[in-house]
Amino acid sequence: MRLADGRAAHREYIRHPGAVMIVPFLDSRTVVLVRQYRYPLGRHFYEIPAGKIDTGETPLQTARRELKEECGYAARTWRHLTTIHPCIGYSDEHIELFLARGLTHVGDAPDDGELLVLGNRGGRVYVWAAG
Amino acid sequence: MRLADGRAAHREYIRHPGAVMIVPFLDSRTVVLVRQYRYPLGRHFYEIPAGKIDTGETPLQTARRELKEECGYAARTWRHLTTIHPCIGYSDEHIELFLARGLTHVGDAPDDGELLVLGNRGGRVYVWAAG
Repeated sequence: MRLADGRAAHREYIRHPGAVMIVPFLDSRTVVLVRQYRYPLGRHFYEIPAGKIDTGETPLQTARRELKEECGYAARTWRHLTTIHPCIGYSDEHIELFLARGLTHVGDAPDDGELLVLGNRGGRVYVWAAG
Repeated sequence: MRLADGRAAHREYIRHPGAVMIVPFLDSRTVVLVRQYRYPLGRHFYEIPAGKIDTGETPLQTARRELKEECGYAARTWRHLTTIHPCIGYSDEHIELFLARGLTHVGDAPDDGELLVLGNRGGRVYVWAAG
């Protein structure tokens, strides 16, 4: 590439396949979260479900898959909210953010490799009541 | 590291020095933004000023430096709002978010290497009036 003053410059950045994040509403006040150990930061976080887009998947297909794999839910209605670029300076990553409503619990099926431990309390996935 | 089932696993992630982002209020309705070409995404973005923490700097020192370098402003009052982990799955990056108020224009001094072109309209840095 060339800078505005004509000098040549070299830029390195990360190619990322893209990812999705899902805000899954159980009801108007309750969002399903997952608890996950994040190795780079050395601790657990409560997060909205998320995951990388696999080759050949549309973002919506990824969102459906991740909501089922991480939380065991299927959703009746899906809405794309926005696109986020979390590391604009050194990565082309894009995160497609979806709203999921009309949830039905269809059984947990966490990724074998990830060993996600969903926090079950009284048979329910960890939830956080907003407001 | 070891997974919960006892298998050994290898995790690679990015070590990042950390960064700051600044929300600089010119007045209660006006935030100073910078326009910058982001090579990984191949286009310009309007952004709040931000930058990486240099060795030996506190996050507040970085924030003061970046606000001056990118926008030409000094701020009278600074408030740390929160810490963001933008790439929790593959990087230890943390972004310290600051609120800056009581701005004084002390002259633009963009980084030579970055060649930031601040959008000046009628002598003013690009601003966005909220609400």
